[in-house]
Amino acid sequence: MKIVPVNASKKYDIVIGKGILKDLGQLVKKSVKSERFAVIADENVGNIYLERVLSLLEKEGFSCFSFVFRAGEASKSPSTLNEIYSFLAREHFTRMDAVVALGGGVTGDMAGYAAATYLRGMEFIQIPTSLLAQVDSSVGGKTAVDIPEGKNLVGAFKQPALVLIDTDVLSTLPRDFLIDGMGEVVKYGMIKSKPLFEQLCRLDIDTISGEIEDIITQCVSIKRDVVEKDEFDKGERELLNFGHTLGHSIEQYYNYTGISHGRAVAKGMELITSLAAKKGLCSEELGSRLSDCLARYELKIEVKPGLGDLKEAVLNDKKRRGGDIDIVICEDVGVSCTRKMPVDEFLSWLED
Amino acid sequence: MKIVPVNASKKYDIVIGKGILKDLGQLVKKSVKSERFAVIADENVGNIYLERVLSLLEKEGFSCFSFVFRAGEASKSPSTLNEIYSFLAREHFTRMDAVVALGGGVTGDMAGYAAATYLRGMEFIQIPTSLLAQVDSSVGGKTAVDIPEGKNLVGAFKQPALVLIDTDVLSTLPRDFLIDGMGEVVKYGMIKSKPLFEQLCRLDIDTISGEIEDIITQCVSIKRDVVEKDEFDKGERELLNFGHTLGHSIEQYYNYTGISHGRAVAKGMELITSLAAKKGLCSEELGSRLSDCLARYELKIEVKPGLGDLKEAVLNDKKRRGGDIDIVICEDVGVSCTRKMPVDEFLSWLED
Repeated sequence: MKIVPVNASKKYDIVIGKGILKDLGQLVKKSVKSERFAVIADENVGNIYLERVLSLLEKEGFSCFSFVFRAGEASKSPSTLNEIYSFLAREHFTRMDAVVALGGGVTGDMAGYAAATYLRGMEFIQIPTSLLAQVDSSVGGKTAVDIPEGKNLVGAFKQPALVLIDTDVLSTLPRDFLIDGMGEVVKYGMIKSKPLFEQLCRLDIDTISGEIEDIITQCVSIKRDVVEKDEFDKGERELLNFGHTLGHSIEQYYNYTGISHGRAVAKGMELITSLAAKKGLCSEELGSRLSDCLARYELKIEVKPGLGDLKEAVLNDKKRRGGDIDIVICEDVGVSCTRKMPVDEFLSWLED
Repeated sequence: MKIVPVNASKKYDIVIGKGILKDLGQLVKKSVKSERFAVIADENVGNIYLERVLSLLEKEGFSCFSFVFRAGEASKSPSTLNEIYSFLAREHFTRMDAVVALGGGVTGDMAGYAAATYLRGMEFIQIPTSLLAQVDSSVGGKTAVDIPEGKNLVGAFKQPALVLIDTDVLSTLPRDFLIDGMGEVVKYGMIKSKPLFEQLCRLDIDTISGEIEDIITQCVSIKRDVVEKDEFDKGERELLNFGHTLGHSIEQYYNYTGISHGRAVAKGMELITSLAAKKGLCSEELGSRLSDCLARYELKIEVKPGLGDLKEAVLNDKKRRGGDIDIVICEDVGVSCTRKMPVDEFLSWLED
C-alpha cells in the first residue's frame, strides 16, 4: 500500500494499492468522524461494487444510504444534482456526514460538487474506479457539473478527506477505458517526469498492468505537487492542461461523443508539440518520441478536424477566458512551461 | 464614509455611508480588476436602482449586463439559479469578471452562490439594499439557495471583494422592512455590545434614521469580528444565531409566509431569554429590558404557536443537525454564550 499525503487547504491521504478496497472501513475511520455515508455511483459501477462498499462500511457500524444514477456524461447535470440534494435531505444528512463517490470522473465530479455545496459542505471520500479518475479527476479537488451551455461550467474546489485507489478495480474496466486513461498518464511524463516517460516507453498497453501501482503513484504525486503549489488554479496548475486546449477543441468538434477525453488529449499533445517544434520551441525529435510512446498505448490516432476546424473551437473557448490564451509547451521530456499569448497569435500558429 | 476592513480567507472592505452609491465606480475599481459586470436584482429593486447602477459602472468604461428576477423568497431556487448560469454563459463571463448583487437577502444569497460556483468562482460585489441585508446577510460570506426540502440547504462560503452599503437606499424601503431589519440589529446589541443596546434604547423606529450609519457600522463590525474568528461556522459564529432556533421554528410554523424573519427572531430572542431566566441563566430583568427595546421598534408581537407547537419544529430541525443542539443564551446585555445540550433537554425546557 502506498500513501501520497496531500497538504492543500485540507490535509488528507491518497492511498494506492492492489486489493485495498477491503480496508475501506479502517481507512475511512482514520480519515473522518462521520458515521453516516451517502454512497453515490452510476449503474455500471454500482452493479459491480455497490453492495460490497456498503457492506464494508456497515461492518464498521456505519449507516449507509446509496444513490445510483444512469451512467454517462449526460447525467452530470443540474437535474441529477437536484435529485442528489433531495436524497441527502430526505435521509437527513448533516455536515458531519460523508458523501462517497464510487466511480469514474462523472461520479467523482458530481458527487464531489454535491458534497461541496449541500449544507455548504459535507465530508467527502473518493473511490475512483477508472484509470482516468485514479490518475487525474479524483486528485486535486476540482468538482463540477455540466450545464447546457458547456462542460464543467458550474463547480467548486472541494478537497476530499480520503482518496482510495484500488488498482484491482482496473481489471473490471473495458480495455478501451484503460487506453483512454493512458492519455493523461503519458501527459504526466511529458510535463514533469523523464523517468516516468521512459518507463512508459519500456511498457505497452498489454504489459503495463504489472507496474500500474507504481505508475499511478507517480502520476498522483506529480498532480499533488502541482496542486499544492496552486490549489485554486491561478498559475502552475495550468501545466496539467498540456494537450488540452487542442484536445478540448477536438472533443468539441465531435460534440463530446465521437472521441474519448484521453484520446483527444493524446492528439492535442501531438499537435501542439509539432507546432512548437515548427516555432523552434522544442526539437522535432521530441515529437517522434511522444508519438512512439502514444503508439504503445494505442493512442496514435487520426482525427477528422483539420487545424482550420480547430481554430473555430479555440475561438469559442477563448470567449470564456478573455483576450489571451495560455498554451502549455513541452521543451523536453519532463520539462514544460506555460506561454501566455494573444489568441490571434495562437490562431496564426494553426494557420501556418 | 466609514470603512470596516474584513480579514477573512479573502481581504476586503465593507464601505458604509450616506449617498455613497454615487462612488460605486471608484470603489469597484479599487476592489477588483474586472471589466465586465453581471448585475443581478429582483424586479422591485431593479425598477428603482438598476439603471443608475449600470450607468455608474458604464461611466467607468465597464461592460455591464443585467439579470432581473421576480421578487420574493420563491425565486431563491435551483431554477432561477440555472437561469443565472445560462445568462452568465450566454454573455461569456469569465472568472475575472464580477457578479454584482443589487438587493436584499434573497438577491445577495443567490447571486453570491452563482458567483461562488460559476466557473468555480467569479469576483463578487454586494450592494445590499434592505436593512436586514446591510447588517446581516451581506456580511460574512454565507450564500445559498433553497431547495424544496428546506431553506438554504445548498450553498457555499463566498467572501465578496466589496460590500457597498448606502444608507440612503433605506429611505425607499417600506417601513415594514425597516422594522424587520431591526430584529437583527437588536440581536447584535444583546450578544455583543452594551453600548449599541443602550443606544437602541434611547431611539425608536421613527428617530433611528439620524444615527443609522453609526448603528449599521457597529452591527457590521460585530459580525466582522465573529466571522474573522470562525469563517466556516464551526463555533463562535453560532452566537449570531441568538433567537434563531425558536425564530426558525416560528417561521416554519407559519410556513415562512405569515411572519418576517426579523419579527420571528425578535420573538425567538424574547422566548429563549425568558426560558433562560427560569433556568437561572440570566436575570428576569434582562427579559424586560429586551422587551422594552423591541417595543421601541414595533417588534413586540404575539405569535400563534405555543411552546408545544415549537417543540415539533425544533425536532424537525434537529434531524438535520444530529443529536445535540446549540442554544445561544444571553447572560447579560452584550454577554452571550453557546450551550450545547441534548435535544431532549431543550425540549423539556419548552415543556416546563
